[in-house]
Amino acid sequence: MSRQFRMLTPFLSFLLAIAAMAPIGQSDEGMWAFNHLPRQQLKAKYDFEPTDAWVNHVMKSAVRFNSGGSGSFVSSTGLVLTNHHVGADTLHKVSTAGNDYYRQGFRARTQADEPKAPDLELNVLQSIEDVTTRVTAAVKPEMTPAAAFAARQAVIATIEQESLQKTGLRSDVVTLYQGGQYHLYRYKKYTDIRLVWAPEFAIAFFGGDPDNFEYPRYDLDVCLFRAYENDQPAKIEHFLKWSKAGAADNELVFVAGHPGRTDRLNTMAALKFNRDIRLPYILDWLRREEIMLQQYSQDGEESYRIGKEDLFGVQNSRKALLGQLAGLQDAGILAPKAKAEEALRARVAADPRLKAEYGSAWQRIEQAKQVQTELLQEYSVLETRQGIGGALFSIARTLVRLAAENEKPNTQRLREFSDSARSSLVLQLYSSAPIYDDLELAKLTDSLGYLTEKLGADSPLVQAILAGKGPAARAADLIAGTKLKAVAERERLAKGGTAAIESSTDPLIQLARLLDPAARAIRKKYEEQVVEVERQAYGQIARVLFEVEGPDRYPDATFTLRLSFGTVKGYLENGQRIPPWTTMGGAFDHAARHGNRDAWVLPESWHQHRSKIAAATPYNFVSTCDIIGGNSGSPVINRAGEFVGIIFDGNVQSLIGNFVYDETQNRAVSVHSSSIIEALTNIYDAADLAQELGK
Amino acid sequence: MSRQFRMLTPFLSFLLAIAAMAPIGQSDEGMWAFNHLPRQQLKAKYDFEPTDAWVNHVMKSAVRFNSGGSGSFVSSTGLVLTNHHVGADTLHKVSTAGNDYYRQGFRARTQADEPKAPDLELNVLQSIEDVTTRVTAAVKPEMTPAAAFAARQAVIATIEQESLQKTGLRSDVVTLYQGGQYHLYRYKKYTDIRLVWAPEFAIAFFGGDPDNFEYPRYDLDVCLFRAYENDQPAKIEHFLKWSKAGAADNELVFVAGHPGRTDRLNTMAALKFNRDIRLPYILDWLRREEIMLQQYSQDGEESYRIGKEDLFGVQNSRKALLGQLAGLQDAGILAPKAKAEEALRARVAADPRLKAEYGSAWQRIEQAKQVQTELLQEYSVLETRQGIGGALFSIARTLVRLAAENEKPNTQRLREFSDSARSSLVLQLYSSAPIYDDLELAKLTDSLGYLTEKLGADSPLVQAILAGKGPAARAADLIAGTKLKAVAERERLAKGGTAAIESSTDPLIQLARLLDPAARAIRKKYEEQVVEVERQAYGQIARVLFEVEGPDRYPDATFTLRLSFGTVKGYLENGQRIPPWTTMGGAFDHAARHGNRDAWVLPESWHQHRSKIAAATPYNFVSTCDIIGGNSGSPVINRAGEFVGIIFDGNVQSLIGNFVYDETQNRAVSVHSSSIIEALTNIYDAADLAQELGK
Repeated sequence: MSRQFRMLTPFLSFLLAIAAMAPIGQSDEGMWAFNHLPRQQLKAKYDFEPTDAWVNHVMKSAVRFNSGGSGSFVSSTGLVLTNHHVGADTLHKVSTAGNDYYRQGFRARTQADEPKAPDLELNVLQSIEDVTTRVTAAVKPEMTPAAAFAARQAVIATIEQESLQKTGLRSDVVTLYQGGQYHLYRYKKYTDIRLVWAPEFAIAFFGGDPDNFEYPRYDLDVCLFRAYENDQPAKIEHFLKWSKAGAADNELVFVAGHPGRTDRLNTMAALKFNRDIRLPYILDWLRREEIMLQQYSQDGEESYRIGKEDLFGVQNSRKALLGQLAGLQDAGILAPKAKAEEALRARVAADPRLKAEYGSAWQRIEQAKQVQTELLQEYSVLETRQGIGGALFSIARTLVRLAAENEKPNTQRLREFSDSARSSLVLQLYSSAPIYDDLELAKLTDSLGYLTEKLGADSPLVQAILAGKGPAARAADLIAGTKLKAVAERERLAKGGTAAIESSTDPLIQLARLLDPAARAIRKKYEEQVVEVERQAYGQIARVLFEVEGPDRYPDATFTLRLSFGTVKGYLENGQRIPPWTTMGGAFDHAARHGNRDAWVLPESWHQHRSKIAAATPYNFVSTCDIIGGNSGSPVINRAGEFVGIIFDGNVQSLIGNFVYDETQNRAVSVHSSSIIEALTNIYDAADLAQELGK
Repeated sequence: MSRQFRMLTPFLSFLLAIAAMAPIGQSDEGMWAFNHLPRQQLKAKYDFEPTDAWVNHVMKSAVRFNSGGSGSFVSSTGLVLTNHHVGADTLHKVSTAGNDYYRQGFRARTQADEPKAPDLELNVLQSIEDVTTRVTAAVKPEMTPAAAFAARQAVIATIEQESLQKTGLRSDVVTLYQGGQYHLYRYKKYTDIRLVWAPEFAIAFFGGDPDNFEYPRYDLDVCLFRAYENDQPAKIEHFLKWSKAGAADNELVFVAGHPGRTDRLNTMAALKFNRDIRLPYILDWLRREEIMLQQYSQDGEESYRIGKEDLFGVQNSRKALLGQLAGLQDAGILAPKAKAEEALRARVAADPRLKAEYGSAWQRIEQAKQVQTELLQEYSVLETRQGIGGALFSIARTLVRLAAENEKPNTQRLREFSDSARSSLVLQLYSSAPIYDDLELAKLTDSLGYLTEKLGADSPLVQAILAGKGPAARAADLIAGTKLKAVAERERLAKGGTAAIESSTDPLIQLARLLDPAARAIRKKYEEQVVEVERQAYGQIARVLFEVEGPDRYPDATFTLRLSFGTVKGYLENGQRIPPWTTMGGAFDHAARHGNRDAWVLPESWHQHRSKIAAATPYNFVSTCDIIGGNSGSPVINRAGEFVGIIFDGNVQSLIGNFVYDETQNRAVSVHSSSIIEALTNIYDAADLAQELGK
């Protein structure tokens, strides 16, 4: 699934994610929080008992890419290993028409040659603190959902801000178990990140969209960055040592990464909402984006270069979500979920105390889903990434809201404008990443058309937005008139506050102002009538499950650090045994089987160095580790805490993993550690980097 | 627009098309019926008076491709010229893995080498008879819409069947002016059609999807068939003589062809329905089809060969409909329509007699559109091509319905099963065209998923259809189990009637039976509550317009023969003058400008013969002729009734032509007659064919 593992956007996930709680499987299931590891299971099944030192070391070696993915420190000199497709955002931003590092690969010969990412933030988890009591105490039972949401938001903002002031660390309160618990995560931040090495796109994404989410695979989906502090390579205490042999057959392995979102605690009403409403809706939009980006990319070689990162991301999401939907449409998959829910509800109904305390949860979620269905179109086009598209409008909206939010106390702001979130927001807002007019135009045109379809062309808001023109002509005016490409202009507007915004004649600022009241109104409705109601109801469900089935359960994914575990192991597909391993030599065979064409053209470097490559080197492998989008780039670790591989994909059978984990079929796909060294040494003339990795 | 000019399917158009009536422009607007030509306009603007002989000759030289397009006889020896993309359906069906005539082109060296199309029917109009009085007399004012629909259907079936019996000609009663008039069209049919010559796909569709609907263009979008009778080349009395010089600058030209559908009589309620409901809905489906077919085509070279005809058709429709939608979303385009409607309604409201007779029309259409909106999803997945996909299911459904319809009298059958339609239906049903399992599987899987989304996975019908499996697994079972690929099995079931159908264990027959009651029910609702109501209401509107503005107006397109007229003339685009002409030499420059790659790779034959090609030969040209999808392949004719070119596309500005014609911008794009001769003689080594064309 490569790209599915990069989150769509952290912001979207932040808005939509509903941390869920799932029952423990008897299997390798689970994405466990670092302060709540499955110690008994590990001991029982694998005879492994992680020490505190082991846990602390792994936790501080794991890196979150805030662009949406995972990685790890792999040297004391600041080297961060991640997937090529996680680095793609930066690879794309540091490329130019003449130097397409994303496509051709990149190698910094010296540290001075390492280009700086314009807006990349890495987070390294330092500690977790349970703040459930304080958060839930702020919400009184008698409060309306609106008051409850505001109170909760306020206490969270306060906790975060206090922590930031006290520790200087990025401080996020994370909603776990969909509202069952609240934990404070503190991160060390790195914002000076530079590109060290990347292979060619052709080998990183070998097999392209057709091979994506398939196995066996032959992808070198890796790249190396270096974290800097004070303009010097960061000195890293906790980094993963490179294993001598790498992952081995049937070996116990761990994945330490940042799964973005799962929905395993979903009630049946929520699953059906996903199946019948949400996924079909998003998929229609993704297909639309895909066609739009394809059309754009056909305009010539430079358009292709500019558009491809977005295009591949959208294709990946489309394939991932289609896999989720197909799973939900299979009655065989939902039946056990329905049965389990029925049993739990019956048990609750049969016990007066349980009934009084938890009995209303399912009905409340069902009602919230009805409200969400009603709000869906308007909310999506006014407040999510299905709304008005392009980097420039996004900047305009941030500026408009920043001015307004700055006039409020920290506790009353929209969450992404809180004090604790501020520096990350500013990093994005003042990014010097290139913005391409014609791509902006394509996105703006299409998204104005989409908004017009969803709100109806007769809507007064739409008529005001289009200003008497068709979407294409209006978009052309907006792009021609805006000055927001200039970072200095953004700074000027941000510093000028409300007065600067209100007097701005920039057409995108004016458009963002026009939209803002309606967007805020629908967001408020959504937060109060969906998010808050579900948070309370899932809180009930989480508590009843803890009470009835015990505390040994992991929370749904929340793009926070988790530990998964499992075994390197193949699987059966249509009666055929799929072996866990591929080899580097196999890549040449795989290319030949596909006529060495289209997505199966190996890069020149591989052909040139073919005789030097040890063909039997383990290349990609699968394990039963439970992962999902956001885990891309996560290190795979052995008992000794050493680096043995890097997650980059899941098999197609893993896509339903958003809702259900099935150990017989679900497999995480990794690049083996040995192949990375082999490639650096014998293909990419980078023995020095291999050495820096300790090999 | 090339492919837009091929109709989506005649059947769909038949179900959906609502013949509309538009006011006469002061311009070259209009697709005129051959029994109602704009003689005064032609005289006034062009000093041209067509004789009856001219009209009769042109009418009988024009050919309708029932696969969805137009063409013309161009020799006494049965040669029929059409577009490559109109012939594509047949080119694809006569191709095999080793012989991809669609892609590589084709040349029959002798008549014995001309391969026969498996299911192509050509129609040549012989006469038109006004049967309005008889049809409308059958529908009494006091009838409910349901009774009215049945009565109208019955009288139409009777008229058609009587005419068929009397003349032996295919006889279709056509609804004109959306219900204002009913005319009986009689056609001579040709069903033994053989392929003579086609150029390579690369030059027929040079510039591909990016150039589609763009101008200037450089496409040799032509191919030649030959009609046979009694296993001999048909002897053709009326065929178009090849003009010596071809079309010239500022020359008056005519287009005689079969525009598929326009909606120019649409009321504002109907336009808004198209803008806000229908077009967005179909576009979502088209994008879905496009992605599905792309995915299928990526599976390898043979998949690419098999899938591309469908894929290009879908891409064409997507681009065409997006152009329509963009036009409707432009307030500047709808405003004059709104104003005209308002004025007419005010005039009707002010006159008690007009008000009593016509006043209710607009409100009735608005109500019909509300009903159509409610029925849309269910109707589309159960009864249109957005339903269960693939050739095999379509065969199964035809067999199931055939058995049932055969037990009813002719007047009570579903229209496509009437006596007069029977032979065309059977030609399709027993077609020997290849059917590819894996494409069937891809279509069936995706369409079962689509149906599940639209009807909801909890719908009992969906659960019965999926039989406890997911769409992919269910589709695999259906394809593995059916025997309908064998024509003999289809014949056996058709001959066995209801007993054979009811005892059939073929899973697709069983699926079609399962679906049929619901499909018939929704169709009945749609016909009675939408089609019939609109037919009556548009009948009112047509009559009031005739009364108020006079009889000189053309009916909306109905995939029947029409004559358009206009001038060879360029246009302005973003202030730039676009010249009417391109040349064959220009094709090489156009390729070079696009790096001679992707869709701009000229075929080897052009490079080989470059020195022999007269570079200045006129190649493609534009005219103001008013055309739309279905006109593809229409001959362009001069005053002398000679062939001067062939329609294959419209510019992007013409897409809104479905609703509004604008002479300043709307252009029809043609291949010039001279370039066809030049290509046959100096590129394709086919001087003999050029000679047969009289050159």
